[in-house]
Amino acid sequence: MHFNSDTTICSLITPPGLSGIAMIRLSGPQAFEIIGKHLHTSISEKESHTISYSVFHDHEQPIDTVTIFKYVGPHSYTGQDTIEIGCHGGYIVPKRIIELLISSGAILAEPGEFTLRAFLNGKLDLTQAEAVNDIIHLQSPAALESASKQLIGSFSKELSALRDATERLFKYLILDFDFSQEDIELVPKDRLISELQSLSLTARSFIESYETAKTLRSGHQALLLGYPNAGKSSLFNAMLGYTRSIVSDVPGTTRDFVEGSMIIDGIHFTLIDTAGIHEHTSDAIEIEGIAYSLSLIKRATIILIVNDITCGVNHSQSLIDLAIREHPKAQRILVHNKCDIHDVDIAASDAIFISAKKTHGLHSIIDSLSHNAKQTDTHITFLLNERQAHLLQEYVHAIEQALQLARQGMSTDVLAIELRSALDTVGLILGTIYTEDLLNDVFANFCIGK
Amino acid sequence: MHFNSDTTICSLITPPGLSGIAMIRLSGPQAFEIIGKHLHTSISEKESHTISYSVFHDHEQPIDTVTIFKYVGPHSYTGQDTIEIGCHGGYIVPKRIIELLISSGAILAEPGEFTLRAFLNGKLDLTQAEAVNDIIHLQSPAALESASKQLIGSFSKELSALRDATERLFKYLILDFDFSQEDIELVPKDRLISELQSLSLTARSFIESYETAKTLRSGHQALLLGYPNAGKSSLFNAMLGYTRSIVSDVPGTTRDFVEGSMIIDGIHFTLIDTAGIHEHTSDAIEIEGIAYSLSLIKRATIILIVNDITCGVNHSQSLIDLAIREHPKAQRILVHNKCDIHDVDIAASDAIFISAKKTHGLHSIIDSLSHNAKQTDTHITFLLNERQAHLLQEYVHAIEQALQLARQGMSTDVLAIELRSALDTVGLILGTIYTEDLLNDVFANFCIGK
Repeated sequence: MHFNSDTTICSLITPPGLSGIAMIRLSGPQAFEIIGKHLHTSISEKESHTISYSVFHDHEQPIDTVTIFKYVGPHSYTGQDTIEIGCHGGYIVPKRIIELLISSGAILAEPGEFTLRAFLNGKLDLTQAEAVNDIIHLQSPAALESASKQLIGSFSKELSALRDATERLFKYLILDFDFSQEDIELVPKDRLISELQSLSLTARSFIESYETAKTLRSGHQALLLGYPNAGKSSLFNAMLGYTRSIVSDVPGTTRDFVEGSMIIDGIHFTLIDTAGIHEHTSDAIEIEGIAYSLSLIKRATIILIVNDITCGVNHSQSLIDLAIREHPKAQRILVHNKCDIHDVDIAASDAIFISAKKTHGLHSIIDSLSHNAKQTDTHITFLLNERQAHLLQEYVHAIEQALQLARQGMSTDVLAIELRSALDTVGLILGTIYTEDLLNDVFANFCIGK
Repeated sequence: MHFNSDTTICSLITPPGLSGIAMIRLSGPQAFEIIGKHLHTSISEKESHTISYSVFHDHEQPIDTVTIFKYVGPHSYTGQDTIEIGCHGGYIVPKRIIELLISSGAILAEPGEFTLRAFLNGKLDLTQAEAVNDIIHLQSPAALESASKQLIGSFSKELSALRDATERLFKYLILDFDFSQEDIELVPKDRLISELQSLSLTARSFIESYETAKTLRSGHQALLLGYPNAGKSSLFNAMLGYTRSIVSDVPGTTRDFVEGSMIIDGIHFTLIDTAGIHEHTSDAIEIEGIAYSLSLIKRATIILIVNDITCGVNHSQSLIDLAIREHPKAQRILVHNKCDIHDVDIAASDAIFISAKKTHGLHSIIDSLSHNAKQTDTHITFLLNERQAHLLQEYVHAIEQALQLARQGMSTDVLAIELRSALDTVGLILGTIYTEDLLNDVFANFCIGK
């Protein structure tokens, strides 16, 4: 990642593919000069935030009819002079235009670099920058409410309030220490303790939403686990067909197992079929397959144990034991399959009885997943991420330390050290304090063109 | 396809996928009213061709921070009032925004509908509308020059000139017929014949570029044909690796054969591996596979016959015979593989000797393909499509008919009928004459959002 903004960067900001329009962003001090080399019309007299039509040229050769969007810094996404080029989509035109911009002095933007510049130029704070990436990668429609609130800065506002309250208390403690030589107590001990408790409580309430945020962010991972021929693949296909809400295969994932997407009550479920993993004959692959299955079990939030009822109701007990042992926190649902060819007494069990082949009983599985979906509070205010949750835990830890010291009657300069470190953690969340490493971590996951 | 422009249509105009930005277009009489329902800021006082920032809402709930591009008709792509919404990319936000626009009265645009409206409102003629779709679907970088010329209207200009010349002659003929009762010959026979010859020549010169245009448009289809174990798959992988310019797997194609893309000298080559087709053991599939291979042979422009040299130089003769019989026009290249494990006398043959396994000799195949690529004239002015070529042939036919009648000394009213029909074909190319069927045909291949 580059941390200077002297260069002019460009990249496609829409996905590659066949489409009416592709958008290319060119941002930096030379943006207007570079685009000027490729248009035979002048845009220098155009005002900021205006749209004009032109033809993008390679010297005398026309490349494409384009729409030119002009933003004069600091009133742009990055805060710098910016041109957005709306050209025709497909694989040839956008690539050629980017090549030509680069030949005229622009450099290809790294993933996240536009947003990094926006952050460095004070256009958004770090939680908003993270929300930009979040909102793009959302998988559950139900997560949109929280993500958009975060994007427009609701979380920043609450965090800033927390920081201000902490800072106010910190300053009092410093003052108090200055006056303490003169035996004046500015902050009474009771007041101090109650203020610290209040700060801790606020931060804890943020952290509490983290588990929900995780579900909203990534949805549920529902793993189908079963012995060969238990009917996992049939169930997999039947369920995806039944819900009729396949989003898409998750791109970029390994094909050693099959994944499908379902949206149930606004929450994204990734259904994972491990079929094929156990069914290899070679020992080496078998062992590898088992190790792999175990890693899938550990990742799952819901494990559907698919039992072939024709082999008996307890046939898959060892798989249930395995799931309990490997991932006790995951929810387990026992599904007896092949009930069409086997008479069963369903009254005596809380398991689900289905026939994947005849698509009987699938609604019971969906109901069960829906129950999980509905337990997700979609109105949580913050879509906390791991970094933020971790820093908030550090904040709470520092405040609790201060609280303990206050109860022990320690002098306020000692407490101030803890509050200073609490303040720093909030600063790191908001990005008012940052290191290059921190920014590298935050922006490393961005997609190109953001 | 809808042929009225009373509705307000919307759709994503960038590809679906993870990206910084997604663009949604909303166009039609209610565009400003509909967007107004979702912004808490007013855009009514904004001028045409201006950009503003806002938050897109579902009633009180914020959905996303958006950029609003405003175009007041007729100064827009479609010619109607248009709003483009730049929102965050990914799968959730753009979908939600489109759903909300639809709930507020917009309807989802059909593929090509924006460009259809542009055509119906006189913003571009039919050859330009076709060029819009062409430029998006281009696969060969070398085709860009011709496609962009067509887009900015060079072909339209030449066609209009042809139409004007035809019309002038037609009017003379009508006048001539009016005066013929009085024995005045307005157009001397020699002059008439030479004018008709000139029209025919111009149209023929357009048609001549069609074969080149086909190659520029779709590139070459290079088929690997060979017996099992001749090393087709190794060669396929080696060539794609060697050229290092894989564009992407062609989306939406069947996976019964494997396709890869290479760009050689600016021309797109689709390399097709039929491996696996003949290698089935079941008879039924074998037969199906052969039928399928034959259809691939007929589609190919270049057939690479891959011969296992360890089985002898003439081992694949029957495949060569098959290729000649099934598709005599395709270019054939005989490639002897496995030359690393077999001594060969390469002097006595015009075949290519390689080792796919050791990636020896691949440059000879690339040279041979490059030779084909270079025979494509990338400077042809027009990227004629099948529809246009077909209509131009009808034009030439009518002109030739008129020429024959003129030579026979037929009266000018009879000639005028042929010229009238010639004029109509040019009108159909430009779209000054059209039927709903014609428009359906032209716009049926458009991608959504164009």
